[in-house]
Amino acid sequence: MGDEASFDFSVLERVDAPFRHFDAGQKIFLEEDAGDAMYMVRSGRVDLITYGIVLENVRPGGIFGEMALIDDGPRSAAAMASEPTEVVAIDKPTFLAIVRDDPQFALKVMELLAVRLRRMNKQV
Amino acid sequence: MGDEASFDFSVLERVDAPFRHFDAGQKIFLEEDAGDAMYMVRSGRVDLITYGIVLENVRPGGIFGEMALIDDGPRSAAAMASEPTEVVAIDKPTFLAIVRDDPQFALKVMELLAVRLRRMNKQV
Repeated sequence: MGDEASFDFSVLERVDAPFRHFDAGQKIFLEEDAGDAMYMVRSGRVDLITYGIVLENVRPGGIFGEMALIDDGPRSAAAMASEPTEVVAIDKPTFLAIVRDDPQFALKVMELLAVRLRRMNKQV
Repeated sequence: MGDEASFDFSVLERVDAPFRHFDAGQKIFLEEDAGDAMYMVRSGRVDLITYGIVLENVRPGGIFGEMALIDDGPRSAAAMASEPTEVVAIDKPTFLAIVRDDPQFALKVMELLAVRLRRMNKQV
C-alpha cells in the first residue's frame, strides 16, 4: 500500500471532462465491472480494494481506473471513496487525445503502472 | 507466464539503436542490476526470471527491461536468452524520443505493463 505519483492538473484545462462527486463509503466501481473511464482525484481520497485488501490510497493529483482504458479489460480492483471525494472522469477518446498531445502524461501513466508492478512483485 | 503483445518494428527504422547478440543460456541482466536500456527481441527468445520462476517468455516483437527506463529503478527480474537471440538496445534518450514521436508506442508500453499487472494480481 502506498501513495501514488501526483499528476499535473494543467492537463485538465485542455480537456472537457466532467466532475463527479462521491460520498464517504460510496463505491465508484467494483472489481470485474466493465470500465469506460479513468479518474483523477481532485479532492478527498479513494481506496483501491481487492479481496478486501486496500492496495492503494489515491489522493488529490492521483489517478486510478486507467487499466481498463489501456487494455479494455474489466476493473482489476474496486474503487471506493473513503471520504467525500471529487474526481474528474476521463473517457477513452479523451485519454487517447491526452496521450497523443502530452508525452509527459504518457510517461506518468507508465511510471504509475511501474510503481504498482514493483509493489506487486514484492508481494509475490 | 505468457507471451507479450508484439511491437511494430517500423519504430526502429527511425532510431539508431545498436543490436546485441546473446547465446542460449546467456544472462542479459540480473535482478537488482542498474538498468540504462530496454530491449526489443528481434530473433530468439528471452526468459524473464525472478526467484527461479520464469515470469514471461519474450519473443520476436516483444520488449523487456522498460521498467528501469520508466522509473530509474533497478531491474525487477533477470533476463536470460533461452536460445540464440538478437535484441535491439534502446537507451533512455531514445526511449523518450520514441514516446514523444509515437503515441502508439507509448500505448503499447502501457498495455504491456497492464498485462503484467493483471497477471500479477491473479497470482497474489
